[in-house]
Amino acid sequence: MAGIHDVAKMAGVSASTVSNVINGRAGKMRAETRQRVLEAIEALKFTPNSAARQLKSGHNTTIGLIIPSVANPFWGAIAHQIEQATRKRGYRLLICNAERDPEVEQSYAETLIGSGVMGVILGSSPLNFDHLKDLIARGLQVAAFDQRARESGSGVACSVSVDQELGGLLSAQHLIGHGHRRIGILTGPVRTNSRIGRVEGVRIAHARAGIPFDESLLWQGGGVSGFGDMQGAELGRIGVRELLSRENPPSAIVCGNDMFAIGAYAGARDLGVSIPEELSIVGFDDIALSELVFPPLTTIRQPTAAMAEMVVDLLIHCLEEVGAPREDNFVNIRPQLIVRGSTGPARRRPNRE
Amino acid sequence: MAGIHDVAKMAGVSASTVSNVINGRAGKMRAETRQRVLEAIEALKFTPNSAARQLKSGHNTTIGLIIPSVANPFWGAIAHQIEQATRKRGYRLLICNAERDPEVEQSYAETLIGSGVMGVILGSSPLNFDHLKDLIARGLQVAAFDQRARESGSGVACSVSVDQELGGLLSAQHLIGHGHRRIGILTGPVRTNSRIGRVEGVRIAHARAGIPFDESLLWQGGGVSGFGDMQGAELGRIGVRELLSRENPPSAIVCGNDMFAIGAYAGARDLGVSIPEELSIVGFDDIALSELVFPPLTTIRQPTAAMAEMVVDLLIHCLEEVGAPREDNFVNIRPQLIVRGSTGPARRRPNRE
Repeated sequence: MAGIHDVAKMAGVSASTVSNVINGRAGKMRAETRQRVLEAIEALKFTPNSAARQLKSGHNTTIGLIIPSVANPFWGAIAHQIEQATRKRGYRLLICNAERDPEVEQSYAETLIGSGVMGVILGSSPLNFDHLKDLIARGLQVAAFDQRARESGSGVACSVSVDQELGGLLSAQHLIGHGHRRIGILTGPVRTNSRIGRVEGVRIAHARAGIPFDESLLWQGGGVSGFGDMQGAELGRIGVRELLSRENPPSAIVCGNDMFAIGAYAGARDLGVSIPEELSIVGFDDIALSELVFPPLTTIRQPTAAMAEMVVDLLIHCLEEVGAPREDNFVNIRPQLIVRGSTGPARRRPNRE
Repeated sequence: MAGIHDVAKMAGVSASTVSNVINGRAGKMRAETRQRVLEAIEALKFTPNSAARQLKSGHNTTIGLIIPSVANPFWGAIAHQIEQATRKRGYRLLICNAERDPEVEQSYAETLIGSGVMGVILGSSPLNFDHLKDLIARGLQVAAFDQRARESGSGVACSVSVDQELGGLLSAQHLIGHGHRRIGILTGPVRTNSRIGRVEGVRIAHARAGIPFDESLLWQGGGVSGFGDMQGAELGRIGVRELLSRENPPSAIVCGNDMFAIGAYAGARDLGVSIPEELSIVGFDDIALSELVFPPLTTIRQPTAAMAEMVVDLLIHCLEEVGAPREDNFVNIRPQLIVRGSTGPARRRPNRE
């Protein structure tokens, strides 16, 4: 493979001149010299790093996406949509699986910067962005899926999110409207901004209806690694069995995401509990599977295709026009309740003892 | 952010000396000079490209993974397992979504080479590797999930695969053993080595049992983009409805993968056809969902966790010890039939007219 010295030799210049051309420091260089270097790079198919592609466009055209887990179909779907949105705009996307671990997220952000990438979309909604502060200070533009990123003082450049609290509120209000008074929650550890928002929405719905929320029905599963993103369905299955085995079980359950809900279906089936006759279930996300399972899942839709387009637009705007974050760089979308077959009226059900 | 010239200035050397250190051409350099450059790089946190990390280990520690679609839970799960296997070995993984499009695969491989990555795992099983030949000639080590890569003369360095033909054979033999005589196939376009192998296995099972295979029951869905990887479940739903509406419908269906099978469940439900009483379904892959759906899915297990470990081991071996591909760089694994609740004895069923 051709090296920088082969290019220098062919163009009749020094290696540092080649380096100057690659790194966009050709300001004082004669146009003819620059041209010779570019031709040698072309002829030798020299690509020491992504710099070569930057030459054509004037900036790096690869962005990064750091998500909690590529094994969770929600993240898989949104990563796919972001990739399509990226490619449509002449960019490329490198996807990293970082399991919500701040060290791993930081290390991948460094790997990406090291590859010449200056824009990263962060899928997780961590409680703070401290682990990315140094990299942001070094020029990394970060797009988040978290409305609180704006107030975090973290230097996050832009964000697209659905209103998590409203999502939790809508799901609980739907159940309360069906007469449910004991509502459980199945979720991964409530240690991310999105989960905190969703749970808070459920609490608010209870407060507005004048119904006490029983905190003992908040079931959190999933260890440190990925906070349960990998095994959502398995956790949902375990969690629903645990909640339904209580002395005074819930008649309805709000799930942290659709994979938890699909697992909850299996757990209810294990106990012979039918959905929605004996137990109502609401998901969150509206992944493609939610319409296919039986009964089709009532859930809160995140419009991921639109979110993917928006976040890529915002990030590319930040990359191409350097400037301070603006108010409208932070978009918060209203989620939508999609009513399907997994929710119905609350019925009296004998306690399981 | 510090540039190569800042490093050169601090170390009191020329930019091309810095470049030599970064690119491992410090052979004739005085150890003391090299040390000064390394210290300046460290002090200025200089990471122009992945070279910085290479300095520590002596080689680049990032590898790439190019898969058909991160939106397909099978690829999501295997990407996740490969990422874990990679990280365990002190490497990092950059994941690319290339939709089986040779141009996109090539472009991502170039993006990766441009980032200093010299090893790539290719998830798709294309009919040829022509689009990667130039990059392989430039030193890219490619690991495939395709046993035919060895004979392709493509320069693919290593591969891990399950025996696709055996998988197809096992699924059809299981159905034939249950008395099924009209077996359909639901698959994406049979234009990849893995799909060709699976379909061939079904044909062989028929031939061995002396039963004619009705080629009109081979249903292929999915357009050019991703060959149906994104919408497997949706295609399965459409395909099963089409096959079951025939004058002489199949009593059992072999699905190209588990997502097709999960979609087929929904399509059968749409028509009021019960599984397995009226229709037997076999999947392929054994994704986590297959055990959770109802009835639990009979399928062919690909041991993805073990495959992930093996392919990462093989690729890292190729990267760290340069040498010609060896016989045992190509591993072919026997898949396993997992019998669950979606298959049963063939029954007479009235034609739907």
